[in-house]
Order: sequence, then C-alpha cells, then structure tokens
Amino acid sequence: MREVPDFPRPGVVFRDLTPVFSDPDALRAVVDALQDKIHPDTQLVAAIESRGFLLGAALGYGWRYGVVPLRKPGKLPAVAHRVSYDLEYGTATLELPADAITPGQQVVVVDDVLATGGTAAAACSLVERAGGVVTGVSVVLEIPALGGRDRLAGRSVDALISV
Amino acid sequence: MREVPDFPRPGVVFRDLTPVFSDPDALRAVVDALQDKIHPDTQLVAAIESRGFLLGAALGYGWRYGVVPLRKPGKLPAVAHRVSYDLEYGTATLELPADAITPGQQVVVVDDVLATGGTAAAACSLVERAGGVVTGVSVVLEIPALGGRDRLAGRSVDALISV
Repeated sequence: MREVPDFPRPGVVFRDLTPVFSDPDALRAVVDALQDKIHPDTQLVAAIESRGFLLGAALGYGWRYGVVPLRKPGKLPAVAHRVSYDLEYGTATLELPADAITPGQQVVVVDDVLATGGTAAAACSLVERAGGVVTGVSVVLEIPALGGRDRLAGRSVDALISV
Repeated sequence: MREVPDFPRPGVVFRDLTPVFSDPDALRAVVDALQDKIHPDTQLVAAIESRGFLLGAALGYGWRYGVVPLRKPGKLPAVAHRVSYDLEYGTATLELPADAITPGQQVVVVDDVLATGGTAAAACSLVERAGGVVTGVSVVLEIPALGGRDRLAGRSVDALISV
C-alpha cells in the first residue's frame, strides 16, 4: 500500500491500494482475506463504484457470487433505487441497477475503504430497498477515527486493516 | 444482456451487461471466454474505468494477472502518464497509475464495449508509454459499425459478441 500525503486535500493521507492490485499474489491474498469474513449465506456482492468494483468482481469470480455494481448517477440505463447522502462537502448519490437483486437475497457490501460510512450506509439502504438482506460490509481498510462503524450500527462490519 | 433504447442519447441502443454480472455462472462464463483469447504471455490486465474494472479484476483473480486500473482524471494520487482523446462530443482523459507497469511487461487491455476505439487506443498508448507491451485488446461486445478496429489497426482485438 502506498501512502500519499495531501491527497485528495491538504492534510489527508491517501492510502493507495494500486500496488496491491498490480501484483497477482497480493490481489489474491487480499480478496481471500475478505472472503474469510463474509457470512456463508451470502449470494451476491454489492460493489461500490469504482474501486469497490475491483474487489467485488474478483470476489464474485473467485467465490461464485453474483456482482451488483452500485453506481454514481447517470451511468445506469435502468435504475431500481437511488439514495443521496451527505459527504464532508456537499452530497453524493448512489444507484442500484434494475432487476439486480431478488427479494430475500443475501448481499455483502464491498468497498476498498470505510471512512465516515456514508457511502456504505447508502449501499446498505439500496440493497434493503430492493428487498435484499445485508449480511455485512467488507472493506480492506478502515479509518476508525472517522466513525464509519457508528453509522453502520447493528451491521456486521469487517476490515482487514485499521489505520 | 438487456437492450435499452435511447440511452445515453436518443437513437442509441445501450447494451447493458448488468444482468451478466449479477449471475455468478454467467460472470464466470464471460470472463473465461475472454481468457480463451488472451495471449499466453500476458502478465497484466489494464482495466478501463469503470465497467472494465469488473471484467478486469475477475480475470486477474481467476487467471492470476496483476490488474492495473486506468482511471478518469483526478482519481489517482500518483499518475505515471495521461492521455487525452476525442469523443463524439468533447474529449476524455485516461490516467495510468505510477509504478504499475514494469518496462517489458505484457499487458492486455480489457473493457466491456469496443465502440469508436478511442478509449482503447488511449489505453494502449498509456501502456506503451510506461514501457509495457500490449498483447491485445479484449472486450465483451464490439459495435463494428463504429470502426473501433480501424483505430486499433495492427493490434490483436478480440470480442465475444458483435452487434
């Protein structure tokens, strides 16, 4: 993992997973470590755009989950549900594709980083609006100081690393 | 695959791969069909943001390639190279992360759709600026009427479906 100071804003240290992805053994180790903590009833991975796509699709291929991309606005031709949520500055929106989740399906939410938890909470809400059951939230990196777990109270949250 | 008329613009029929990703067997079948045509010397997958991330990461996990995400501007904390290219309306830019490709590495470019070929050509150019060798361009869907193969003349281009 590469640490990049002052990105995307001054004072923030960005943890860059790019070197993990470009090494096939590291990619496999990280994805398999995520898998170790995923509830065994899980059927689908809800992957958050964009870095969550990398982890979620690798998990889906490797461990036979369907993959549902949760996308930024305007990308999906057919949208089932849409959730807007607050960021530190402004708001963001996440969309769930139509017909991607069958009511009762067991879904894990996957992303690279858990920070304030706003994006992950929105993802859980989208899954549940479609009738899915959230089995947990799995991330590579958690930044506990930002309180993401509080925003996901009552949910199973697994992170490989905390910084 | 779902066909959505008039997305993203009137007159365009959008081919939506979302249903393929949400079915684990379909995902595996598509990724393995891509793999069948990839040059055996290939070491890395250069995956184009965002839908190319889904295919590229599944390929990387399943078939032991490193995965290099080629990203839209402003997303990468450390950029090795940047290419801007023309779209039908306006321009777009793609960035290659720092230290992701070692000179001489054999790289396949992966995306969901080959249309005009502008994005794929930019991706090949990025790989080569970093000293990589492009072994081919692999996509699920090709739209031959848009001439993408002409723009990639001299390169190996493989598509699972043409429409």
